[in-house]
Amino acid sequence: MQGGISGDKTGQPVARNIRLTIAYDGTGYFGWQSQSGKPTIQGLVREAIRKISGEDVNLIGSGRTDAGTHARGLVANFKTTARVPPAAWIPALNRQLPPDIRVLSSRVAPPEFHARKSARSKVYRYQIYRGQVIPPHRVREHFHYPYPLDFALMQRAARLFEGKHDFASFAAHSGVKADPNEETSGARTVRRMLCCRLTAVGKRLVFEVEGTGFLHHMVRNMVGTLLEVGRGRMTLGKFRELFRARDRTLAGFTAPARGLILMRVRY
Amino acid sequence: MQGGISGDKTGQPVARNIRLTIAYDGTGYFGWQSQSGKPTIQGLVREAIRKISGEDVNLIGSGRTDAGTHARGLVANFKTTARVPPAAWIPALNRQLPPDIRVLSSRVAPPEFHARKSARSKVYRYQIYRGQVIPPHRVREHFHYPYPLDFALMQRAARLFEGKHDFASFAAHSGVKADPNEETSGARTVRRMLCCRLTAVGKRLVFEVEGTGFLHHMVRNMVGTLLEVGRGRMTLGKFRELFRARDRTLAGFTAPARGLILMRVRY
Repeated sequence: MQGGISGDKTGQPVARNIRLTIAYDGTGYFGWQSQSGKPTIQGLVREAIRKISGEDVNLIGSGRTDAGTHARGLVANFKTTARVPPAAWIPALNRQLPPDIRVLSSRVAPPEFHARKSARSKVYRYQIYRGQVIPPHRVREHFHYPYPLDFALMQRAARLFEGKHDFASFAAHSGVKADPNEETSGARTVRRMLCCRLTAVGKRLVFEVEGTGFLHHMVRNMVGTLLEVGRGRMTLGKFRELFRARDRTLAGFTAPARGLILMRVRY
Repeated sequence: MQGGISGDKTGQPVARNIRLTIAYDGTGYFGWQSQSGKPTIQGLVREAIRKISGEDVNLIGSGRTDAGTHARGLVANFKTTARVPPAAWIPALNRQLPPDIRVLSSRVAPPEFHARKSARSKVYRYQIYRGQVIPPHRVREHFHYPYPLDFALMQRAARLFEGKHDFASFAAHSGVKADPNEETSGARTVRRMLCCRLTAVGKRLVFEVEGTGFLHHMVRNMVGTLLEVGRGRMTLGKFRELFRARDRTLAGFTAPARGLILMRVRY
């Protein structure tokens, strides 16, 4: 563990860029981003930093997350001159935070590191429980969907998400609320999915997708659309057309927040 | 699904023996067994049956479970003359119960079926989380134990539980609070473990044990003792002696309730 902060030549403390990995059960929260009067992850972590350091920092998250969704490894960063050894932020913050928000790691990042702008890709998971009755230990992080599904067809559709596509049909109605990690010179709704996989584990369906950026509600809309395919309400042909259609009304419903988990962010 | 109940020759309704499988998150409960003024699983399920049928039934569970422990498949039975089709108990009970208690299945059992006396074996799981910070989705059903452990030695010790042994050293201090599924003509504290396995899954340790019967606190004491072995505080030689010693003070601590899950009961 590093010691206290060192001063520069003028004796002034140098600001360190601290990078945190944060996990949370988002059931009781209005997502990541601070909103006045509502409990959010960003709001609570900023407040914990303020209690420890006395500083009102600019806490940058890897991206917004919807109300009610979860994270295993959201990344955030902030600059501080507080004389707190980097690893000491972990127990200090966790003492201030409720048990459903945990700081898993803390380290010094280069000054230019920016949790959102530096991100190269994000991995999301969406969990579905198919059994007739959902057992209590699955309730908080699964969407309960106890209907017959053509799993093989859903798997084929899931693979079609891979690659670079225009995901306008899968964006929230506000459509253009794009993630700022935009890599493309084309449409604002074009994103690249590096890997997209649907697996069955007992009575669970687990959808995992890694992409360089995501539109608002995109993963939840991808899942709702895959479920329409699985139910036989949308053919694979119609599914393929969605990329060209750029029409949100043609894709499936928005799957509920509780099944969505931000697994990790890659830099 | 079967229809309404049929009468016998006298026109009186015949009592059916209904067998339920129940899962619960036991965090907020004082275990299975009814206790006046305290929320228990048995108490809430009996109350739900009363609301549906108007009957105060004798609800028999496969065994007691400790306060704060969980179940994925506890089995219970009760006799009723209510004109409720067997499978209809599932949604009817789940409507009455809080979401952390779920009836997973319901069917008619032979009249002689007794959830406790008919049980042939039970499978328990104990979950440990070894990482420095426990992520929120692991909190409710894991014991957080972030210390170095000799895992291979613990695995060897775990295998020594298999077979027929006197588990007096692993019983709660009240010792003789034995599970009534006693198969042996020997000591009241002799039990047979059919299978005992310790596995590592990422930062989790999962201990699974199937036995024909268990003493009060026995699984939690087995786990506490394995952890003493893993920490280097007890040799394998001392561990072996515990079966002969019949002395609770020589074994390890009682691991906390939250890590214990009754997985299934076999008949």
